[in-house]
Order: sequence, then C-alpha cells, then structure tokens
Amino acid sequence: MSDFADYGYDICRSGRPPALPANLTQLDELAARQMTAEAYGYVAGGAGTEATMRANREAFDRRRLVPRVLRDVSAPDLSVELFAPTGFATRVPAPVLLGPVGVLATVHPDGELAVARAAAAVGVPLVLSLAASHSIEEVAAASGGGTRWCQFYLPADRELGVSLLARARAAGYGAIMVTLDAVTTGWRPRDLDNAYLPFLQGAGVASYVSDPVFQRAAGGPVLSWDDAMTLMANDRTFGWRDLAFIREHWEGPVLLKGILHPDDARRAADSGVDGIVVSNHGGRQVDGAIATLDALPAVVDAVGDRLTVLLDSGVRTGADVVKALVLGARAVLIARPYAFGLALDGQDGVEHVVRCLLAETQLTMILAGVSRASDLAGSGLVAAALCSPAHRGE
Amino acid sequence: MSDFADYGYDICRSGRPPALPANLTQLDELAARQMTAEAYGYVAGGAGTEATMRANREAFDRRRLVPRVLRDVSAPDLSVELFAPTGFATRVPAPVLLGPVGVLATVHPDGELAVARAAAAVGVPLVLSLAASHSIEEVAAASGGGTRWCQFYLPADRELGVSLLARARAAGYGAIMVTLDAVTTGWRPRDLDNAYLPFLQGAGVASYVSDPVFQRAAGGPVLSWDDAMTLMANDRTFGWRDLAFIREHWEGPVLLKGILHPDDARRAADSGVDGIVVSNHGGRQVDGAIATLDALPAVVDAVGDRLTVLLDSGVRTGADVVKALVLGARAVLIARPYAFGLALDGQDGVEHVVRCLLAETQLTMILAGVSRASDLAGSGLVAAALCSPAHRGE
Amino acid sequence: MSDFADYGYDICRSGRPPALPANLTQLDELAARQMTAEAYGYVAGGAGTEATMRANREAFDRRRLVPRVLRDVSAPDLSVELFAPTGFATRVPAPVLLGPVGVLATVHPDGELAVARAAAAVGVPLVLSLAASHSIEEVAAASGGGTRWCQFYLPADRELGVSLLARARAAGYGAIMVTLDAVTTGWRPRDLDNAYLPFLQGAGVASYVSDPVFQRAAGGPVLSWDDAMTLMANDRTFGWRDLAFIREHWEGPVLLKGILHPDDARRAADSGVDGIVVSNHGGRQVDGAIATLDALPAVVDAVGDRLTVLLDSGVRTGADVVKALVLGARAVLIARPYAFGLALDGQDGVEHVVRCLLAETQLTMILAGVSRASDLAGSGLVAAALCSPAHRGE
Amino acid sequence: MSDFADYGYDICRSGRPPALPANLTQLDELAARQMTAEAYGYVAGGAGTEATMRANREAFDRRRLVPRVLRDVSAPDLSVELFAPTGFATRVPAPVLLGPVGVLATVHPDGELAVARAAAAVGVPLVLSLAASHSIEEVAAASGGGTRWCQFYLPADRELGVSLLARARAAGYGAIMVTLDAVTTGWRPRDLDNAYLPFLQGAGVASYVSDPVFQRAAGGPVLSWDDAMTLMANDRTFGWRDLAFIREHWEGPVLLKGILHPDDARRAADSGVDGIVVSNHGGRQVDGAIATLDALPAVVDAVGDRLTVLLDSGVRTGADVVKALVLGARAVLIARPYAFGLALDGQDGVEHVVRCLLAETQLTMILAGVSRASDLAGSGLVAAALCSPAHRGE
Repeated sequence: MSDFADYGYDICRSGRPPALPANLTQLDELAARQMTAEAYGYVAGGAGTEATMRANREAFDRRRLVPRVLRDVSAPDLSVELFAPTGFATRVPAPVLLGPVGVLATVHPDGELAVARAAAAVGVPLVLSLAASHSIEEVAAASGGGTRWCQFYLPADRELGVSLLARARAAGYGAIMVTLDAVTTGWRPRDLDNAYLPFLQGAGVASYVSDPVFQRAAGGPVLSWDDAMTLMANDRTFGWRDLAFIREHWEGPVLLKGILHPDDARRAADSGVDGIVVSNHGGRQVDGAIATLDALPAVVDAVGDRLTVLLDSGVRTGADVVKALVLGARAVLIARPYAFGLALDGQDGVEHVVRCLLAETQLTMILAGVSRASDLAGSGLVAAALCSPAHRGE
Repeated sequence: MSDFADYGYDICRSGRPPALPANLTQLDELAARQMTAEAYGYVAGGAGTEATMRANREAFDRRRLVPRVLRDVSAPDLSVELFAPTGFATRVPAPVLLGPVGVLATVHPDGELAVARAAAAVGVPLVLSLAASHSIEEVAAASGGGTRWCQFYLPADRELGVSLLARARAAGYGAIMVTLDAVTTGWRPRDLDNAYLPFLQGAGVASYVSDPVFQRAAGGPVLSWDDAMTLMANDRTFGWRDLAFIREHWEGPVLLKGILHPDDARRAADSGVDGIVVSNHGGRQVDGAIATLDALPAVVDAVGDRLTVLLDSGVRTGADVVKALVLGARAVLIARPYAFGLALDGQDGVEHVVRCLLAETQLTMILAGVSRASDLAGSGLVAAALCSPAHRGE
Repeated sequence: MSDFADYGYDICRSGRPPALPANLTQLDELAARQMTAEAYGYVAGGAGTEATMRANREAFDRRRLVPRVLRDVSAPDLSVELFAPTGFATRVPAPVLLGPVGVLATVHPDGELAVARAAAAVGVPLVLSLAASHSIEEVAAASGGGTRWCQFYLPADRELGVSLLARARAAGYGAIMVTLDAVTTGWRPRDLDNAYLPFLQGAGVASYVSDPVFQRAAGGPVLSWDDAMTLMANDRTFGWRDLAFIREHWEGPVLLKGILHPDDARRAADSGVDGIVVSNHGGRQVDGAIATLDALPAVVDAVGDRLTVLLDSGVRTGADVVKALVLGARAVLIARPYAFGLALDGQDGVEHVVRCLLAETQLTMILAGVSRASDLAGSGLVAAALCSPAHRGE
Repeated sequence: MSDFADYGYDICRSGRPPALPANLTQLDELAARQMTAEAYGYVAGGAGTEATMRANREAFDRRRLVPRVLRDVSAPDLSVELFAPTGFATRVPAPVLLGPVGVLATVHPDGELAVARAAAAVGVPLVLSLAASHSIEEVAAASGGGTRWCQFYLPADRELGVSLLARARAAGYGAIMVTLDAVTTGWRPRDLDNAYLPFLQGAGVASYVSDPVFQRAAGGPVLSWDDAMTLMANDRTFGWRDLAFIREHWEGPVLLKGILHPDDARRAADSGVDGIVVSNHGGRQVDGAIATLDALPAVVDAVGDRLTVLLDSGVRTGADVVKALVLGARAVLIARPYAFGLALDGQDGVEHVVRCLLAETQLTMILAGVSRASDLAGSGLVAAALCSPAHRGE
C-alpha cells in the first residue's frame, strides 16, 4: 500500500523547494501569469460572474472537521471501493480521480497524454474528455496500465455515439461518465471577451475526426469547424428514456455527471445507473448554481446506498477531499488543479498536484483519527456547517 | 421565435472581441473612467452609503439555483405573458424591460432616442422616464414599432397630469408605470458632493416644457429651473384614493412602481391596478432599504395571482433574471446596465447589454432544465437562500 | 418647523461643492490625513482590535428598512418628546444630540466652544463632556440659548461631585448624563502606541481646575497631572445605591449612559432615573462588546415604556437614525462625526455634519412613508435583520 | 496582588512609545518583515490553506460581550485555581499560560531561555515543548522560581518516555501536558515550499540528545537527523489504554492537549486525567478543523465540572481571554504572539506581549462589571454568538 503522506517528508528531506507550491489554491494565480490569455480564460473561467465558482469554494470553507484523538492510525488506507451497490465492485487506491477536461493541447503540447502518464504513475484513474486534443486510442496508449474511464455526451447522431462507445471499450476504458449538464455551453464572459471557443479551432476534436462514423457523415476532410460542431452536437432532447440506449451499448459501469437535485438522483438510481457525479461543471455552466458540497448531503440521503456518489467542482485540498467523503461522496474528481499543473510543469506538474492532494488527504484523515478513507462516511468524524443554505424553495 | 442565445456563439465565431464586456457587472467600472464625474455620479450613485445598492446585489448572490437534468430543452421560449390576471393579457418576447432612467442626454447626446432604437431592435419594451431628455413624442418616433410604456408621477397640478397621460396614449405608449418611491429625491452624496442636480440645469424636462398645460402655467419661456421644478413637483399628499384619478384618465394597464411591503402589494391589488414593480429605485432613495429580491417572495405570496409582479433594482445577469422569475416575478427591468452601455457605445452599447442579458437568461434556463420562461415560477427549479433576512419586525 | 431636508437642495442649487462630503462615513479618512497622529488616534481609535467599532457599524448595515408607499408625507416633523414617562416631558426639534467628547482643544483650538455654537445654530442639544477643554461655564456662554446637558462621572471625592452638579445647574444645563462604562480607561492601542493620554497633559481638565472644591483639594496650582488624575478619579465602588446621592443633588432629568444588558436597564428603571443611553462608548472601552443596535431591542422590550431610551455608538447616517428609532430609541447621540467635522472645518464643519444627518433622516423618513419621527417606533415601517446575534448565553 | 492594568498607564505616563505595538494582532506582520523566511514560515504558518487559523480568529470575533454596570470593581483579581476537581488545586496569578512552542532557537538565539525568564518575570506558567532548542534542565534553570510545566509526546520507545518524565519531575516541572493532535506533522505548505523542517536540522532535539536512554539507543553521536527522528517518533498506536502508563510514571497533574469533540472530553474525564486543552494546534495540523472557541461550549457542558478545561489556538487579545473564560475555559494558552515577541525583541518582547495581554484582560473584565476572573464563567456576563456553526453532523 502506498504511503501517500511521504511526499511532503521527502520534499523537506531533499532540501530542494518544489517547482510548484504545496498549497494547490495558489496554482491559479501562477498559471494566469504563464498561460496564454485565451487558454487561461478557457480553463480558469466560469459562467457569468463566476459566483458558482466562489460558492463551490465557500461550501468547503464553511464546513469544519472535528478531529478525534487517541485512535490507532498506524495503518492508514486511502483506498475506496466503487460500484459495489450495483455489482461492479472496483477498488481504487485513493478517493481521487482526474476528471474530464477538454482541449488540453491549448494548455501544454503533450495535453492529455501527459495527464494520462501522470495519472498512471501516481495510480489514480483518469476520466478522458471526449473533447480532448488526443484521441481515445492515443490516450489509452499513454495511460498504459493505468485505470481510465471515458466521458460521454449523447450525440444527436446515435450511430456516432455507438461508435465512440465501442472504441472506448476496445481501448480499455473501464467506465463511462455521461455528462448531463452541458447540453449547450454556458455563458462564459472570459471566452466571449476573447471571442475564443477552442472547439471552433479544432482543438478538441481528436476523438471525433478519427471516428469512421464522423468521417462518413462529414463526407471529406475539408469540413469547417462550424459545420463539424453541428455533427458533434449533443442531443437537446436527451431524456431519461435515452439511458436505455446507452446501457445497451456499454456493458461496464455507467455514471451520470451533473446531478444536483435529490429527485434527479433518485431518478438516476431508478434508471439503474451505477453512479452519479454531484457536479456543477466547475461553475462553468449555470452561474448561481448551488455549490456541490451544499447539494451533496441531500443527494446522499436520497440514493447513497443504491449507487456510487462522486463529487467534483471546487476540490482543491486534502481537507476538501476528507470533507466530501465525510458528507457521503465515495470519491472526488479534480480538474482545474491538474490542468494548471500541466500548464506550469507538464507531466511533472500533474504528478505534483495529485501527490500533494493525496498526501494532505492522508494526513488530514490520520490527524482526524480515522484510518481508512472508507470509514470517513458515517465515522465519528463530524463536519459542522456554518450558515448552510436551506434546500427548501421560497 | 428569436434564439437569443446565438449572440455569444456569433461573437466567438466572428473571432472579434466585442466592444464591451460580456460580464455586465464590469460595465460600471468602465463607465466610471469614460463618463463625466457629474453624469457618472448621477447614474451610478445611490442613496447614502449605497448600502441598498450592495444589498440588491447580495440578495441575488445569496440565492442558488438547483438545475435539473435530462429534460427536453430543444425548444426554449423566453416569452412571458403580462397582465393576464386583470384582463390585459400581453405577450412580450423576453422577461426583460428597459426601466425608466431620466436625463440620458447627460450620458450620451442621443439619450433616450438611442435607447428606444436599441429596445425596438432587440424586441424588448422600453419604459420611458418622464424626466427624459427627449419628449414623449420624440421617443415614440424613435421607438417606431417597438413596445413602449411611460412612467408617470402624479403632479400637484392635476391638469398637467391629465395632459401628460393624454399625450402618452396618443403617442402609442401601452401602459403607464406610476413611480411611488420618489415623492422627493433621496440623499445622494455623489450628486451633493458635485453640487449637481441635472434637473436644475433643465436636462430632464423635455416632456414638460413641450406640454401645453405646463407652458400655460409657466406663463412664458424665461422660467428658471428652480421655478420649473415647483411646477413639475410631485404631490406629496398622493395617496391610495388618488389612484382612481389615474385610472379615470388611462384606459390601459396601470403599474405601481416602488412597492416592497406585502401589505402595500395587497392594497395595490385591492385598488385594481394591473401590476406592481417590486423596486427600491436602484438603491437611490432609501439607504438601507430591503433588497428587492428579499422583498419579492412575500409580495408574490400576497398578490402573485391577482396582478402582475415585476422586479427591478440590482438585475445585472441572466442568472439574476432566472432567479427573479423562479421567485415569482413575471419579468424584470434593468436600468444602470443599459445606461452604462449607452455611455460607452451609444445605441450599439445598449443593444449589446440587452443581447448579453437575454443570451445568458436563455442559456441559464436551458441548463437549469426549463424550456419556457413562464415555467420558471413553480417549476421544479429551486432557489435556495443563504441567510435570508427575516421579515418580522423587532 | 425647520425643513431640515432643504440642506441638500440648497447645496445643489448653489452649484458650489460643499467643503466636506455629504456621506459622513467618509469623514474619518479625511480627518486621518489632517489631524495630528495623537489627536486622530485618540478620537478615531477604539479598544483593542476595534472589533466593537466595526460591530457597531455592521449592526446598522445588517438592518433593512421596508418603506411604505402612498402615505401623506407633506408635513414631516422630526421633533421628538423626551422624558415624558417620568414627568419631565421635553420636546427637541430632532432626534439627534451631540454626545459628550472630551479634550476637543486637541482637535481644534475652539474645541467645545465651536461645537456649542454649531449645536445652538442648528438647534440640537449638546451634551458637554466633563473632560472638555473648556469649562462648564465657558461652554454655557458659547451655547447661548441652545439646549445643553452635562455629562457626569461620580468622583471618589463626593464633595467635588456636588460642586460640579451645582455649577451645571447654575449654568443652565438641563439634564445630566451619568457615564457608567468608564470606571477606567479601556485598552486603546492607538494611544498606547503613541504613549499619549491627553489627560496627562491637562487637555481635558477645564471644569476641574476651575472648581473651588478641586482647587482646595489640590492645595495649590503646581499639581502634576498625574496627581490631578487621582483627584478626578471615578469611584470604582460606584453602585446602584449611589444613584440616590446623584438624585439628591440634581433636580432635573438624570440619564445613565453605557447600558447594554436588559437587566441593567430594568434596574435603572427601578432606580427611578429618567433615561438610559444604550452605548458601548463608541467601541472605546470593551473590545468585543455587543453592538448597541443589537442590544437595543431587548432593552426597549424591558423598559421602553418606563423611561426614555437613547442610543449612541456607530450612528453615521440618517438611515441609521431612522433604524434606531424604528427599533425603539427616542433619539440618538453622535460623537466622532462631529469631532471630525470640527477638526476639518471648525464650527462650520460641525454644522455641516449635523445638517447632513438631519437632512438624510428627514428624507429617509418621508421616503419610508412616515411623517413624524415619533411615529417611527411601532409604525408600519419594519426593520428586518440579517443574521442577528442571539441574546442567550452559551 | 499585581495590578496588571498599570502597564498601559505606565506607558502613557512615560511618554515613550513602546518598542512593540499594544495591539498584539499586529505582531505577525512585523515579524514577517524581520524573521528569516524559514523561521517565519514555520512559526506563522498553518496547515493547508490556513482556514483553521482564520476560523480560530473568527470564532472570537463572532462572540460579543454584554458588559454589566454599577458593580463594585475596585479590587480586581485575575487569579484562577486549576485542577481543583481532581484534587491538585493550584492557583495561578492570571488565566494565561505560555503554551509549548518548539525550536525557538530558530527565532532568537536565547530561544526558550528568554521565554522562561520572561514568564517568570511576569508570573505566568510556561509549558515547555519537548521539541525545544534547549533542554528540560536548561530551561528549568532559566525559569528559576517560575511555574513550569512540560509537554509530553508518547514515544514509541517507552523507556525513553519514562526517562523524559523522570527528568521533568526532577527539574521541577509541575504538570505534564500530553499532546494528542500531532501523531504526525500536518500538511504545511509554507514549510514545504521552503523544503524546511527544523527537526531535520537538529533545531529542536535538545531534550532528546541529552537523554541517557536516547543516547544509548542512538549508539553514538554521529546520528543523522533522519535517523534521530525515527527514535523520537511518536507512537501512532497511542490509545486511551496508554494513559495508564503515563499516570504510572507521573504523580502530578496530567493534561491532554488537542481535544475538540465532547465525546473525547468525556473519555478523558473517565480516564482520570486532570485537565484537557481544547486545541487545534493553532491550525497547524488539520486544515478545516473546528475553531476552538466554537468547540469549547460543548466540551465544557460535557466535562466542565469533572476536570480543568483550558483552551488555546487563536488567542490574541484580552477580550479573547475574557470570552474564553466566560464560555467555560479556566485559562488559556498563547503561543505565536510570544514567539513573535521573542523574534522582535527577545525576552523584553515576550514580557511586553504577556503584559499587554494581561492588562487588557483585566481592563476588559473590570469594564464588563466583573471583579474576579474566576467569576467570569457563570457570571451575569453574557457572550452572544453571531452565526455559530451547528455541532450536529450532516
């Protein structure tokens, strides 16, 4: 079993300051200075006034841990089991995954390939974006023996969807994560002020243009990106009934990403999916959406025992990971932190980010008196909230 | 049906950054650099310490949307019907109106004419201020086929009031909006520190000096503005009984603007008016007044089914529009944002502001899982509030 | 009846920007640039980290007014009656008094004389500090026909106390205000960092050194200020029983200043005093003390009908005055704002401060739909609070 | 009995500004400019994003005191009795102790010797860190007649533990304080970014290397610090059962430091220890841990009458001391403030810090109407909280 907490001790013993800071909330500012304005705006920006982005962070900051003492923490174990309620039990070494981020070639030439290598090196799963700059197969090759999952949007062209799923399965992706909260792109002032949409420049279409169904539909290589986006477009009529179609073409675990309301979580459980991700897309879609950590408890109450609940949007520190797990998430996904790590230091930067996060997670867990990450939910560790929003309507 | 959301996509496809930012909360700071100190102070300033202005924004920021997923949003419809409960059913293409702002010639030479043209171009109603720099008839001409309403104050000289109403009707204004919260001008330190009151320089009297009753009362053209203001003065004894006088002289919809207390809303419904505007005059009158979004739910509870409830003061983003509609407003009015747009880029600036607002409103609605703006109230979309003020007295 | 609201209109009509800003919360920063570091530190500073000073302001900022509409406000009346419950009914033209501030010669050469002249000119009562730079008699002469009250500390030397009370009565002071919250000086880092205590330099002893009892006790003129302070020292055993002594030597209204707990307010009413001032000494004594506006409602509940409740500490704007009156104060006292006005512009500065405050008070009252200041308490005007502190102990 | 409040008066009478500020919250910034980056980072820094450090301060700032008036405060007494419930009744002259801070030689060459001299001079107990730069015996000698306690960690090597306890007893330490919340070092980005861990450079091992058991285990002087840390390592299996071992080897009072949960407090009382310290290690261990003042009331409710409850983490001012005592702590410990005092002005700096803190404590107590520190808990003095976090889990 890896002792993730060694990372910090090794830094101090080396006497060499690390290339990137150990406080991952400082990466954003560093990245802003180094990335192009367009790439930084795309990665760091959110919808509207970015209120949801701030809310995501505040929801973590408002929670308090109440550590316990004099418990044996000599054998810490960060691993957690996913998908047990639905029969696909899988153990991952730590409760952290790298969530899907598109067009990473705009951030670093190696893009998703560097991320896949870093994820495999540290031992955390990568969820590949369908809007990646490298194709499903290229990233699988870079990932090697690493655990990988694949994001999925339901395209209006169902045949294209079938083809993408078949390729993901063939390339060793273990689960698919269906993004529900992006039937259209949100209002993102930073991109608009730059008149920048990376998809319009073909930066995130590698998995599409390499697809035989897409190629046939396009009818040739000289396709404008404007036209290509029509082919790639999501189905805006996508509804609960269409989950059967996905299940028909995918044998492994299916997760739905972008659920915030407990009624949608119940519907997801009724539909037989294996997991959901409580997510507001990192605050990039609906400005003013509820913070994911504020939404989590009601969702866990509703379906926590019927399927696997994950969470993303705003996770920056090991304390955040612990809080999310105490409140019922089985694991969390991070996105911007590793994208900034990639921008600042390539594969090494991604590894640093993940190692810092896991080290702090393990230290926080031990110091809170808990040995196993899987014991955080329902443990004697209590998270108290300061001024939580009520869930009732007005 | 217009697809308001195309505006953002069109910007990105053009590759040309827009002249004004897409995040409308940034206009204020830009305008501060470009406008004269007097004009900026007048438009941007509020009463006292401007606490109400901040409260208006915070009330929006404190609310959270809980989006729903997997709903068919392929045919979004921003249009809403106004005045149905009182028999004047009117459909407007979007739940946004341009509220009354006076003396716009101090902001841009084209003043209200440019605003009227922009409103007509985008298809949103304009509510003309009686303190405009251009007269009722001039603005009607600029408005062309656009929907226009007219603000109304009850002058001490009732004959003048009758004349103004007759002119508005003749010039094609469809409704009047009676401003209640400005029986006198609030304590506005920015104007006081500039010793600036635009009315004392004749900047907002076009509709008065062109009025035959006013001209007769003035007895000649060499009237000091100090004396003119006496003639234009509101009736400080104006009470509920006087609404009968207004109704007698106006056949179309009558709205009361400036209501914050649910008892006043009930009294308005009892008085037979067609609509009310929950407003604190953009924080320009009573420093410390309750934020309009905080006041809205109690008002909607009291009268939401008896008349049409609108809201203004603090609306800056599409997410704000959605929140106000979820909480029961049928539509909202904006003011400072378009005045800043006018200051920065004339008619084009006004259009940009309105198009951004409508685009974000539509995107937010779709991404929240709702197809029709009229379904936001009472929909499954929930707005949760963080630390709302209690409405009970102490 | 004065129309206090004319002040703002007169400024705009004059076209001449006023010497001092109309937003009185801006005076502090201006004064900081102009006053000596010692004098500014003494006037502006508070106890400890100045948390109480911030709390005083936040308590006002947290309250919201809910204005009413369509009420006849054509005859506003700011006057209020004090001391009616205890038989000393007195009407003052506005619900604002100038509270006691010591050693004003360190702020401006004319010190309390200029303040007395300004108070008389505007028509508000002045409460003279016993630690003033000018004596009881000198300030009475400057005050002329103006209403004046006198602050009182209980000296350990009771004969000195009797003498001071007799002089105040002889000089036409109408009431005494016994300060309870200053048995010793609080921990004031600004003064400590300057090693500055103005009393040690004789700046606030005019009423003492001119006193025959004090002179006799001192036994001659060559007294060090260190010794003088011993003679002037308050009685630290001062208790409820000693109020009988004060009443014995003072026939007019007696007020107790510095009450925050409702049980102390009840005890004060039982003791037969005529009024209390809910005060934390402007945050200068106990760092972390409850804000006065937060303390007010429980005090008014306890004794509001038995004696006259005033409030100070943190009042800066007309909206503050209205909020305090809605919550049950009969009138408020200001201190730092007029001291800054004095520092910046002498008597004119004090007048400007008071006139601005009264103008905004009147405008806010009218715009809230209330005609008479005495109707604010118990009116339909509601003050809602955001996140008030609980009054229960832990 | 010392009159601690004289310190401020003496400063003003001297006319000489003190070398360090009287507002102790300003020391951090001054120290940041003067200390080495490594030492400052180590002392001032906290775990992760330092959210717990901010929470500690906010918990004090959120509480409000409600002073009482007209009580006899002529004979203030800051002394408190500790350990009475468990039969070790000890009176200390003030409710403040200097808590354990390690490696102070990195802050000032005199390190813990200067601190011990200052503590003895003012008359407050010192709790020596086992990770001090000077040994148990050296600090005892510097402490002279001053009260001293000794921190204790349970080493994996029990024989070493027995030896350390025996030495502390022999050197006149009156109590031991067992630190529970540091079974490993937290994630401290400032140290990590400096690749700095002072223990790896031998800065805090004086009491170990001088220990005969340690010397025997090390087998010689040429031990790398990396290896030494293994010998000094805490026992990560340390549990409630091991308290019997400690009790067996220590006859005086035993305190447990680092308790935040009331169930752990109950367990501590059941285990027969004499005191607990509600502490989150100054926010240096678990980022996001509950503030100690927020945790205190539930702990006091659980065990306040069975053992002595102390508190540390975030205490900076006399008002903080009073608040903690009102909420049930018998005394508090400070750490960073005196470390900054040491850095800035050696022994004099430490004395200044303690004297300021005690002076403000006494003034605040008097001005709140309380004569004896031991009467603060359960007195009529009420602390109200604004928006406290709920203690229930989610």
